[in-house]
Amino acid sequence: MTGTLTAGAVALPPLTSIGLDDLEALARGAAVLGTGGGGDPYIGRLLAAQALRDHGPVELVAPAELPDDAQVFPVAMMGAPTVMVEKTPSVERIGYAVIALAEHLGVTPTHIACIEAGGVNSTFPLVAAAQLGLPLVDGDGMGRAFPELQMVLPTLHGIAATPMSIGDEKGNIGLLTSVDNHSAESLARSLTITMGCAAIISNYAMRGAQARESLVAGTLSMCTRIGRRVEQVRAEHGDAVGAVADEIGGRVLHTGKVVDVVRRTTTGFARGTAVVSGAAGELLLEFQNEHLVALRDGVVQVTTPDLIVVLDTDSGEPVTTEALRFGHRVSVLAAPADERWHSPAGIALVGPRYFGYDTDPVRFDAGELP
Amino acid sequence: MTGTLTAGAVALPPLTSIGLDDLEALARGAAVLGTGGGGDPYIGRLLAAQALRDHGPVELVAPAELPDDAQVFPVAMMGAPTVMVEKTPSVERIGYAVIALAEHLGVTPTHIACIEAGGVNSTFPLVAAAQLGLPLVDGDGMGRAFPELQMVLPTLHGIAATPMSIGDEKGNIGLLTSVDNHSAESLARSLTITMGCAAIISNYAMRGAQARESLVAGTLSMCTRIGRRVEQVRAEHGDAVGAVADEIGGRVLHTGKVVDVVRRTTTGFARGTAVVSGAAGELLLEFQNEHLVALRDGVVQVTTPDLIVVLDTDSGEPVTTEALRFGHRVSVLAAPADERWHSPAGIALVGPRYFGYDTDPVRFDAGELP
Repeated sequence: MTGTLTAGAVALPPLTSIGLDDLEALARGAAVLGTGGGGDPYIGRLLAAQALRDHGPVELVAPAELPDDAQVFPVAMMGAPTVMVEKTPSVERIGYAVIALAEHLGVTPTHIACIEAGGVNSTFPLVAAAQLGLPLVDGDGMGRAFPELQMVLPTLHGIAATPMSIGDEKGNIGLLTSVDNHSAESLARSLTITMGCAAIISNYAMRGAQARESLVAGTLSMCTRIGRRVEQVRAEHGDAVGAVADEIGGRVLHTGKVVDVVRRTTTGFARGTAVVSGAAGELLLEFQNEHLVALRDGVVQVTTPDLIVVLDTDSGEPVTTEALRFGHRVSVLAAPADERWHSPAGIALVGPRYFGYDTDPVRFDAGELP
Repeated sequence: MTGTLTAGAVALPPLTSIGLDDLEALARGAAVLGTGGGGDPYIGRLLAAQALRDHGPVELVAPAELPDDAQVFPVAMMGAPTVMVEKTPSVERIGYAVIALAEHLGVTPTHIACIEAGGVNSTFPLVAAAQLGLPLVDGDGMGRAFPELQMVLPTLHGIAATPMSIGDEKGNIGLLTSVDNHSAESLARSLTITMGCAAIISNYAMRGAQARESLVAGTLSMCTRIGRRVEQVRAEHGDAVGAVADEIGGRVLHTGKVVDVVRRTTTGFARGTAVVSGAAGELLLEFQNEHLVALRDGVVQVTTPDLIVVLDTDSGEPVTTEALRFGHRVSVLAAPADERWHSPAGIALVGPRYFGYDTDPVRFDAGELP
């Protein structure tokens, strides 16, 4: 089964390559699917721009076009986005994580992939692909962003997270082989913290047949489409927030002003809560790198695995959890996740109870307006 | 320069192999050089006995006999000995740490070595050697025990701690390559903590020429000699404590009763203090896995890198820091460390200030009696 994200109203063909001109749109769309996490899209865009200037545009390949024996290497940043704002990973370390894992496995990578759709983890793989001269898979392992390493659809498909590589900007590098994907998270998280809360990882190395089955198809094209649509609607003084809701198949849950934000960076995560006060009351957002639960007057409106997206109300620009601040006028969107996340195994992996929230999962409901 | 530990009064030839009959003596002597750390010698002895029963005796090779191109693989336990009392590593993981590193390096190990003389880290390498059918180097990387990974004479000789392997009893395994030996400690320590504060590591893989130069020669023979001498003197109702002091070239610093012990296991170490009250006043011992500083009435008597050894006064049996308890009648010995530890680089690596004690190093002084 190949997952495909809900297509937007404007049916555009998928991209066949990503160049410098696509980066702004891609980074903006990636921050939307990042649901508040995934790091500062500006930093991801800067690093990708440098790589594309040095190496030229990167070819995009749809998962469906991958040969069975393709050697697909995902690459990502692991850590607290709050840290990355001040500590930019050095660009050459991104491709090196792939090389280190490939050498350990004794295979030659044929494609780079995104394990997460969101923030820097949609643009860092572009850097690796440019550096290594490899095509990038137009898809990702989540269809959104999640904070832990095992929280990917490949886990549901029985694909091992390890062997994996993990490196820092100084040149330290680890290769981990774990007994299961949860252990990979624990081990890699402890190294990430020692590495200063920002590490580059390459994991879930898989064959083309596994990638076709386990990845969400088309997310990079979708991110770019979201980004371009916002730009276009804004130029026409239209409703940018509504356009994003349309592109991700979601709806506006709440509009108002941020009246409270509490955040703390603990054990490598940026955790916290935010309150958005508006005409329809107060919406409380619970986040852990990503927005995970939205409540109104104590009633849960929508939870992980479905998407909770915060946008600047005027511009439609996505707002990361670390950029949320008092007085910010925002719109909160909800949208459906890949259907596989709603399976019992998916809920066990990324449902609200896993994150410590005492609620059953509440699915996005397109019909119920606030 | 090859270091050699001070020979005891009874000049015995070095051992050429270690069998089941040597284990009790070896484990006892290893606990002496362990200076309070190195874990429960009983557990190390149990695991080694199992390996020797399964695979037969292990050949011992003096460092001086190593060919230049020998591939020497040290192996050790990393973690808090207080944890290992309750969580015994599974024996098959010990040899596996060597295999994982050897495969990563693409070399075939020819010899196993001890990186530390002390407690389980004198017996675990015996397990690996038995399992892999390889000879064991009669020496170690410290001539005593120290709590951190970079605290070995090979560091002073410019030998890299990594690539290294690190594994737990579940089967998780990591391979680390660090920019320096201190970073190797940080990265491996964080993995050790995630692995439950007890991991098996193989590091400082080196050639025969490097091992000849950087290891302390003869420590396994010396440990066995210490252990046998204690047994013999005890059978003759002699002074076992004095015999140990003689074997390690040291002297009795203090004799008395333990009147206070404070310990806590933090960030993977067993830290604390103990007070021994006797006729010559109170001796305060500061430990961090190993005993590091001894003070009498606020005056520092001896510090790391020299050896501070606690023995049961009646039996001469070494007492680990985790076994120290109120009311225990003990004798505290001091003895000289390998001379290289007293170089400026050695003091920077293992001197009292590195461990956070506000004192210059105080060397063992054979002439000054308490």
